Parts: sequence; structure tokens; C-alpha cells
Amino acid sequence: MAKAPVLTPQAEDFPRWYQDLINKAELADNGPVRGTMVIRPYGYGLWERMQQEMDARIKKAGAQNAYFPMFIPQSYLTKEAEHVEGFAPELAVVTHGGGKELEEPVVVRPTSETIINEYFSKWVQSHRDLPLLINQWANVVRWELRPRVFLRTTEFLWQEGHTAHATYEDARAYASRIHTDVYGDFMTNVLGIDVVLGRKTAKERFAGAINTLTLEGMMRDGKALQMGTSHELGQNFAKAFNTTYQLQGAEREYVWQTSWGVSTRMVGGLIMSHGDDNGLRVPPRLAAVQAVVLAIKGEDAVLAKVREIGAQLEAAGVRVVVDDRTDTPFGRRAVDWELKGVPLRIEVGPRDLEAGTAMLVRRIAGGKEPVAVDSLAAIVPGILEEDQAQLLRESRERREARTVDVKSIDEAVEAAATGWGRISWADLGPEGEAKLAEQGVSVRCLIAADGGVPAADDQPGNLALVARAY
Amino acid sequence: MAKAPVLTPQAEDFPRWYQDLINKAELADNGPVRGTMVIRPYGYGLWERMQQEMDARIKKAGAQNAYFPMFIPQSYLTKEAEHVEGFAPELAVVTHGGGKELEEPVVVRPTSETIINEYFSKWVQSHRDLPLLINQWANVVRWELRPRVFLRTTEFLWQEGHTAHATYEDARAYASRIHTDVYGDFMTNVLGIDVVLGRKTAKERFAGAINTLTLEGMMRDGKALQMGTSHELGQNFAKAFNTTYQLQGAEREYVWQTSWGVSTRMVGGLIMSHGDDNGLRVPPRLAAVQAVVLAIKGEDAVLAKVREIGAQLEAAGVRVVVDDRTDTPFGRRAVDWELKGVPLRIEVGPRDLEAGTAMLVRRIAGGKEPVAVDSLAAIVPGILEEDQAQLLRESRERREARTVDVKSIDEAVEAAATGWGRISWADLGPEGEAKLAEQGVSVRCLIAADGGVPAADDQPGNLALVARAY
Repeated sequence: MAKAPVLTPQAEDFPRWYQDLINKAELADNGPVRGTMVIRPYGYGLWERMQQEMDARIKKAGAQNAYFPMFIPQSYLTKEAEHVEGFAPELAVVTHGGGKELEEPVVVRPTSETIINEYFSKWVQSHRDLPLLINQWANVVRWELRPRVFLRTTEFLWQEGHTAHATYEDARAYASRIHTDVYGDFMTNVLGIDVVLGRKTAKERFAGAINTLTLEGMMRDGKALQMGTSHELGQNFAKAFNTTYQLQGAEREYVWQTSWGVSTRMVGGLIMSHGDDNGLRVPPRLAAVQAVVLAIKGEDAVLAKVREIGAQLEAAGVRVVVDDRTDTPFGRRAVDWELKGVPLRIEVGPRDLEAGTAMLVRRIAGGKEPVAVDSLAAIVPGILEEDQAQLLRESRERREARTVDVKSIDEAVEAAATGWGRISWADLGPEGEAKLAEQGVSVRCLIAADGGVPAADDQPGNLALVARAY
Repeated sequence: MAKAPVLTPQAEDFPRWYQDLINKAELADNGPVRGTMVIRPYGYGLWERMQQEMDARIKKAGAQNAYFPMFIPQSYLTKEAEHVEGFAPELAVVTHGGGKELEEPVVVRPTSETIINEYFSKWVQSHRDLPLLINQWANVVRWELRPRVFLRTTEFLWQEGHTAHATYEDARAYASRIHTDVYGDFMTNVLGIDVVLGRKTAKERFAGAINTLTLEGMMRDGKALQMGTSHELGQNFAKAFNTTYQLQGAEREYVWQTSWGVSTRMVGGLIMSHGDDNGLRVPPRLAAVQAVVLAIKGEDAVLAKVREIGAQLEAAGVRVVVDDRTDTPFGRRAVDWELKGVPLRIEVGPRDLEAGTAMLVRRIAGGKEPVAVDSLAAIVPGILEEDQAQLLRESRERREARTVDVKSIDEAVEAAATGWGRISWADLGPEGEAKLAEQGVSVRCLIAADGGVPAADDQPGNLALVARAY
């Protein structure tokens, strides 16, 4: 008799599998206000590790953290025309504060370009103040009509970088540096997701940007997820907020700006990239818990052994947890660790003690085999790296296998039913893009003929990757 | 000719000195919406280090981080009567979202007891789910009529811990553990502030708590600052939200709860505890930059030497920055580092090179003297620990010198003009407390006769510490 699956199988109903996993692995709950979410400790732990890794890369790129108010006067939003048009429909508005109606309503930030420019315009005086490289970790609010936990929520957590530069070239180079060295490196080498780095079409650009660079991941159902974006803002906000620096003499020049962000949406991307019918699979470099040592029974000798193994692995630099909660049945704990996607389980029972072995269960590569306890500290770090590489390889192979070259709108729509289509941008163009949109398919990004990031939309040989997207 | 002071002297106008320092050291700006603040990179760096140190202590105390929505349905607030009464006047209310008027207005969290209990009531079923120990790093909003940067702001950053326990005793012990081992340890041993740990009177308790434990610091103007609080909530929120666990059989018991928080207000406390007329003084254990190595001139040999010293100090475990921005005048950079309160400056010019020395300038102990470059890596860590100890000693000596025993309301008010008064709580009582309040003096906390934290308000021998407070 086959046991009932813990999760709805992916092949049966992918969205339901996603929701099941989030519930069963205790990643998040829906909040009481429509579209909000409660991020539970295990889910938040994934985000915390993402923050740590990302924050280190952002600081290495020279940006400093700061914090700007969440409340923005409504009048700020209207200063940049495209920006307000893009965000007005999603705003949350505070009309009362301290028991009184406010003279001017304030909006809860949907993003902070406007309020940050208000201060950049004060802080930037001479070219010596440039580049000004600021990052903020914060919550933002965009009212969502069709919310989905982690992917589209009314409130989400993110980092938003905002920079000002003396020249177009410098701003452009910095937006690109964040795109590749910060976001690309993190998603590929830590999240293990083989993201495509590309350029958004004019239609898909950030409201107020002159160019948006994106990282698109293919999920296990073949749909695309925009994992992060880095924008060149040109001088649009600088002109709206009069952010200038002094050139030779009295002449002043508007600064050139970038902004860039990644959010808790990445947790959703992680789940849909690596999760399987048994639960999540967390890449070892991201995992707060890389290995769990489980006592099968509560005998003293077993408990002593799991603690000893835990100490050895910790000394070997492995992030390890010892699970000695033997008042909970072993099977239930094992399923829970499997659901939560901890890369390695090391299980120890009375019989293992006699043999001097432990059962090593690999969540990512699969399979279980007894290994000598003495060898664990030596082999575990290498196994974790193998598993890290395997997730990235799976992600790449899936993307390659499910991306097909197409030549027409119809073919593109067909390709988007199971994966991505790749089509000449010169052939498709904005008109074709509009037709695809009618059928729920979008241009995720443009890539150059050599697979790199195009310098312009109309660069000869550009290809459009088209897909259904979250 | 004496040079004009960079800051208004403390003795002349303490509040103005505070504001000057915040501006000149680039710690924060006022936000555009009244009462909000922009935390600039150097100020945010102080908060980030506080977060790191505090987060490690919170995790060591067994709590896990999570995240709850900022938007709370208005109806939640009203479920606990005292709680809503306490917070209603300070709420920010969102009435419109996504371009429409909301059916039920939502409030921006002033604190999260209510929304967290909504989830605790789902998550807690059996005694095995207890204790449930959750912490959240978040922004909160309390509309402020008399805002002051870092001390009272409409939006501030904080951590809020929320726990549920099976018994009164367990909850009580945990609130106390946070009070002493987490907050007390951090403030004393990292911030270098000789906080008094005590118990709030009924009048000063958190809205909805049965007991509030507090940490009170004496600022350099003799006023008190509440630096953090840890509350026993009893079963008040559990009853309002029906948060129960199963006892033997079918009977259920309400959980016992705690909540506790510290905020960006600590940055204000740091400034007012340690700052002097030349600027901030950052305790070495907190400082993101413990030592700065300054090149006086831009000669190659000098630049090579400051980088060499920087590398040596970094290898010795010192958090060091090399300031080789010799296109900015040396004097300006030195004043800036002094304003920012970096504990040690190590200044190197051409003459120092010949002598094999560097000028060591101590921000905390004061004074400057040439020291052999070769000895720096060996002596700096010890000097930093000396300076850390000095700040705490100064804080303790100030508090002791400016706390006086008093016997009447008049004497208490007089003591509060320059420091704190200490008076028998049996003599003062709630009536005396009310009379003091009329004159702007409050009971900061009750302490036991032995200086410890009283187990009850009416414990014989209890003393009240009374002061004016921020």
C-alpha cells in the first residue's frame, strides 16, 4: 500500500503543490489583510541567509546601508510622470494619524526613488560626493489584486539600492556590475538557479527607468520568474528632484542614477526551482542547516554519538543541527527535515553504533547509504559542494531542454505552454510583443546573439525570450 | 585665537548640542513627514552593529526570527481593552489601497502583540509547541506630537520579541532572562552604558502587561532614557485571542506570554551617554570602525605606510579603515573622524616615517602621543578594551554622583533638575507619583533595597528612582 503523498504532486497541480509545500514546511501563512503574509521562522531563515549573502556582495560593491522613511508625501510621487503612472494603482494611502485626518495624505512606499532623491539633492554638492552608493533593507507595499505568497504580496521585504553618479557611463557600468557581480553571482552560485541575464523591452521597463536589466529564472513548471532587476534611471529623477553637482565654475549637471532590488520573491523562486514532490531542497551554500544529525532512539549511547558527530561536523565548518527530540517519532522528524529540504540527514540508531556507521541520506542527489562515522567530517563538505553543483546543473539542463527556437507568434505561444520560446527580436518587435501579451505571454528579456546582455534594444541579432511568468 | 566650536557646547544647550551632533556627524536627517527620520549611513552603521550584537544574544536565548505583516485589521487592536486604550491615540490608519477605499481600515503596527497572537492561537496546540519564542526586526509607527530624532519618532526601527509559555513561572523567568542576559548584558558590556535594571510602576506599565521590566540610562544632562523593556503579559492577550494549549485530557489552558523590545532609540542613548563637545564617542566593542589610519599627506611612502599599518591592524583583529583621501585637507578629515567618534586615530605624515612612529590619538581617554609603528598591532587591542571600560566607568560614576537620596516630593523635584532622586516607594506611592507627574518628573523604575529587580511593586524596602525623562 503506497502511503499518501504529503504534498500534491507537481505534475498534478503545480500551484497547489507550491501552496502545500509552503504550509507543510511551515514557510509562511497568509496574513489577515488580503495579500499580506506571515513569514514563519523556517521561511524567514531562508530570507535571512539570502540577506547575509547579498548584503556582503552589496557592501563589496561599495554601497552603504541607510534607512529612509516608509511614509512618502503624496506630492513626491507625482514629480516623475512615468513613475506615478506606474505606481498610482498600487498605493496604500494613510489618511489619518494620531487620531486626526492628515492635511496631506501620505503613501506607504512602493519603492523609494522619490524620497531618496529628495535627500540626494541635499547631500550631493560636488563631484567629490559622487558616486553616492546607498542600499536599504526595508518593507514596501504594492496593493496586489492577485496575491500569491512570496511571489506577489501586498507587503514584501526587499533591498533597494539607489546610486548617483557623475556620468552616464559610470551609472551604466554600476547598474551592470550589480546585475552581474552581485545578483548574477548570488543567484547562480548561492541559490543554484541558472538565471538568464538580459535586458527588458521598453514595455517591461521600470516606471521611470531608461533601461532595466533583469535576471529571469525558469521554474519547474516551465514558467519564468523575474528574480531581480537593476535599472538605469538616466537623469529622470535627478531632473524631477533637482539633484545636481557642480561642474567647473558655477555650472551644474544633473546626476545619473541607478536603482536595483531583490525581494522575498526569491524565496518563491527557490521553492519553485528546486522543490520536488517530497518538499523543498535547499542549496547547501544557502542553507542555515546543511546537515542534521538525527537520533533514531533516545538511548544514551545514541544521544552521545549524535552529539559527537554534530561537534565533529561543526568543527569541519558544516552548519549542523543535532535532532535528539526522541519524544517525537523518528519517522515524523525525518519527513519534516525532508520537507524542509535540509541537504543531508545523518541518522544514527542502536544498530549503527555497533557497526560504527551512520545512515547518510542525501536530499538533493537522492539515495541513502551507511558510511563510517569516522569519515563523516572528511566527506560531508565535499558532498555538500557536489549537491550545490547538482542543483545548478539541473536548473541549467531544465532551462536548455525547455527553451525552443520559434519563428512565429503561434509557435511562441505554444512554446510558452511548457517552457520558453526564443525568437528574433527584429522579427517580433513591439507589435509582436503586444500580440503575445493578449495571450498571456510576455517578453521576459532580450539577450544578445552571443547570449550576453544587449547594449541596446535594437542591437542586431537580439533574441527575445518569451514565456508565461509569475 | 580659539577656534569656533563645531558643536554647541553641552553646558550651553544640551538639546541643541544633540541636534548639532546628529547633523554634523551625518547620523540622521528629519524626514519629510513630521516625526519621521532618515538614518544616514554612519548612523545606520551604529544600528547595524547593535542589531548584530543583539540578534546573536536573542538567538542564544532560543528565539527565532520571523516576520508578521505591518498592516493590522483595526478590529484586532480592540480585542485587548488596555492595549487599544494605550495605542489608539498614536495610530496611523490606511483607508485606501489599490485605488479604492478599504472595507475595513487597517492600522500600521504600533507593536505586534495582537497580530502575533492571532497566529500563536493557530500554531500552539499542545505543550510540545511551548515555549514558542519568536523575534521580529521591523519598523513600527506611533504618531508623535513632539518628535526628536532617534528618541521619539513617528516611525522607528526595532526588534520585538513575543513568546508563549505553559506556565506563569516560565514566562516570568524568560522575561527576566531577556531583561538581564540579553538587554542588560548588551547595554552594559557593548554600549558601555551603566543602565539600571528595574521594574515599572503600574502607571508606567506597557498597555496590556501585568509587569514591565525596564533598563534606564542616565544621559549626560542628568535626564533618564528608557533604553528597553521586557514585559510579562500574563494571559491578557491569550484570553483576547484564545491562545491555548491542551492539558491532560480535553482541558485547555491559556498560554502565558512575554514581549520585549529595543529600538533605534538606543542610538540616541549612545549619543547622549558618551558624546562630548567634540562629537560622538563610540564604544570600541560597538564601533564598526575601531581605528582609522590617516595619511596626512599624499606622498607614496606615506600612503604605503598607512596601508601597511591598516593590514597589520586588520590581521590583529581590529576593525580598521585606511583614510588615504589626501585630496581632502587632513584637518577636515581629522575633525570628521573625531565628530564621528571613532575610538582611535593613527596619523602618519612624512616626519613620522623618518622616526618610525605614528601619532596615536585617543578619542575616549583623550591625548595623543607618538608610538612606534612596529608596536601598534600589539598595543591597539588592549587600548580599545581600556577605552571600552572607561566609557562604562564614566557612565557609572556619573550616575552614582548624580543620584541623590530624597525624602519628599520637593526634594525629588529638585534632584530631578540635575540628576535622579532615590526615594522610598512605600513613602512615595502612586499618590506621590501622580504629584511628581504634575511637575514633569516620573518614576523611572522601582529597585529593591539590595539594588536588584523587585519581584513585586510592594516588596518591602523598594526604592523609586525618579527623574525627568526623554
